[in-house]
Amino acid sequence: MQLLKDRIQKDGVVKENSIVKVDSFLNHQMDVVLFAEIGKELKKRFADCNINKILTIEASGIGIATVVAQSFDNCPVVFAKKTKSKNLDGDLLEVQVESYTRGTVFDVQVAKKFLTQDDNVLVIDDLLANGQALLGLIELVDKSNANFCGCSVIIEKGFQPGGKLLREKGIRLESLAIIDDIIDGEIIFR
Amino acid sequence: MQLLKDRIQKDGVVKENSIVKVDSFLNHQMDVVLFAEIGKELKKRFADCNINKILTIEASGIGIATVVAQSFDNCPVVFAKKTKSKNLDGDLLEVQVESYTRGTVFDVQVAKKFLTQDDNVLVIDDLLANGQALLGLIELVDKSNANFCGCSVIIEKGFQPGGKLLREKGIRLESLAIIDDIIDGEIIFR
Repeated sequence: MQLLKDRIQKDGVVKENSIVKVDSFLNHQMDVVLFAEIGKELKKRFADCNINKILTIEASGIGIATVVAQSFDNCPVVFAKKTKSKNLDGDLLEVQVESYTRGTVFDVQVAKKFLTQDDNVLVIDDLLANGQALLGLIELVDKSNANFCGCSVIIEKGFQPGGKLLREKGIRLESLAIIDDIIDGEIIFR
Repeated sequence: MQLLKDRIQKDGVVKENSIVKVDSFLNHQMDVVLFAEIGKELKKRFADCNINKILTIEASGIGIATVVAQSFDNCPVVFAKKTKSKNLDGDLLEVQVESYTRGTVFDVQVAKKFLTQDDNVLVIDDLLANGQALLGLIELVDKSNANFCGCSVIIEKGFQPGGKLLREKGIRLESLAIIDDIIDGEIIFR
């Protein structure tokens, strides 16, 4: 998605260790105009699916998912929770997700009643690195009676194994920008 | 806001201990059509302010804030973070917030660069109970050079002290629905 790549080039801040910070428009401060354009792009890419529910994970995925939902006939958005909350009760679907960066395993949960056999689910997250969060969300859909239609991330870190892992499993993945490398401070897109 | 009250009556689930669960449309599954109506309502209520930034806190506030921002000329949304993240660096503003329900104190942070003297800030959260999260967000705005214009919550639990506490401090608070009591399973709005 060219608009997104241009934005990453313009406002992404390259740090050491191949990190590009996108906190000014994606995952701390959020540009809802960009999110609406992302929604239009995803609607095009998933035009063949009758998406009627979006699943994401707290926290950074939520803002993108709610705006993107507007492009899918204002379908409901469900966000999976990382901590047990008193707001969660009834039957829960739960999976465990490994965090490479933190070296821990955490539980991810969603109320069973919000993923039903009538739901055609698009899974969305902001970033894809090792793919464990995305795989956890897909596993939640598999555990429910809902239909998994595919997943999308705004930025895939192409130099980390998540994208390859998901594609090798035959999972439909739409990455709107894939950063393959950072050479002398320059961001190289796939 | 009548539409919201009607929705709470229709889809809110009354539990023991004066709890109304609104997880089917507000804070687990999210209804973006309702959020857009909330945006229009807030735009009316804050028509006198030149709001150009919305501040919320992860996680449940994010979805509402991003859709509401569309009613405020698509202004940027910043969400304060509850956990130190590697996505956060540079100068941070930090406050401590007490959680009554969990009996703990946690840090809430925002990057200083996203709250500037040019920002007229509306603070948004989903629920108001004891008011500590909202007070923390307002303190973050006070610590920055930004202008605090007011705050809004979707549901205020009128039988808990937060609303009174904020109003006594002279803080502008727009609660879109105030639940004062639950008697024999019936929700009583103020």
